Amino acid sequence: MIVRDFNDLTGTDRVVSDAQWTSVRMLLADDGMGFSFHITFLEAGSEHTFHYKNHFESVYCMQGSGSITDLATGETHQIKPGVMYALDKHDKHTLRADEELVMACCFNPPVTGHEVHQADGSYAAPAEENA
Amino acid sequence: MIVRDFNDLTGTDRVVSDAQWTSVRMLLADDGMGFSFHITFLEAGSEHTFHYKNHFESVYCMQGSGSITDLATGETHQIKPGVMYALDKHDKHTLRADEELVMACCFNPPVTGHEVHQADGSYAAPAEENA
Repeated sequence: MIVRDFNDLTGTDRVVSDAQWTSVRMLLADDGMGFSFHITFLEAGSEHTFHYKNHFESVYCMQGSGSITDLATGETHQIKPGVMYALDKHDKHTLRADEELVMACCFNPPVTGHEVHQADGSYAAPAEENA
Repeated sequence: MIVRDFNDLTGTDRVVSDAQWTSVRMLLADDGMGFSFHITFLEAGSEHTFHYKNHFESVYCMQGSGSITDLATGETHQIKPGVMYALDKHDKHTLRADEELVMACCFNPPVTGHEVHQADGSYAAPAEENA
């Protein structure tokens, strides 16, 4: 059994930040669960375009408010506590935080922790990591 | 893209209750994500012994307080907001809610929604469902 406290991860390499977001990786690929689990913070006023071509991701809003636009359809959905979106078609999307968003995220395949967002908003597939 | 609001699922078959717990299935196997995602409530004062022999599960505490005991080692860990436990060895465990616990849970393989807890505290493996 793995037991991990979010509050103990501050200052470790499990906390990853990029422009206007921070993600705390509670579970990564090497934990062997077959998915990764992250608590992610998106700064108030920020906007992010992501396209996880190689991963499925679900995102559950625990706190804050904002919106998500599906860039394939143009449709926009409000995000508030209790709303989840799941990128079951590797959907390219833009996420906006009106207030700071705190999200619980699951990735399949699990994120290794070594990915960087590529220019197209994706993470590389696991097999491409050392390519 | 799937967008689902926790608050819209009340009264649907995505809400499952058993003795002193309720689970809202935000994602199930047929959503095709390769994991399922549930928001689970455990009543204050309740105690639960589970043994997911066929599933990995991670559980992140969003609200409440309690404890978990690993029945293989006898070790007990406090549960409070920000603490996650991951059953990476299909660990048989007892979960106690001192205050009502609200947990974000991921299962791999994904729960289909048709499982029942068996006498040994497990869910059947997907392949055994119709056996």
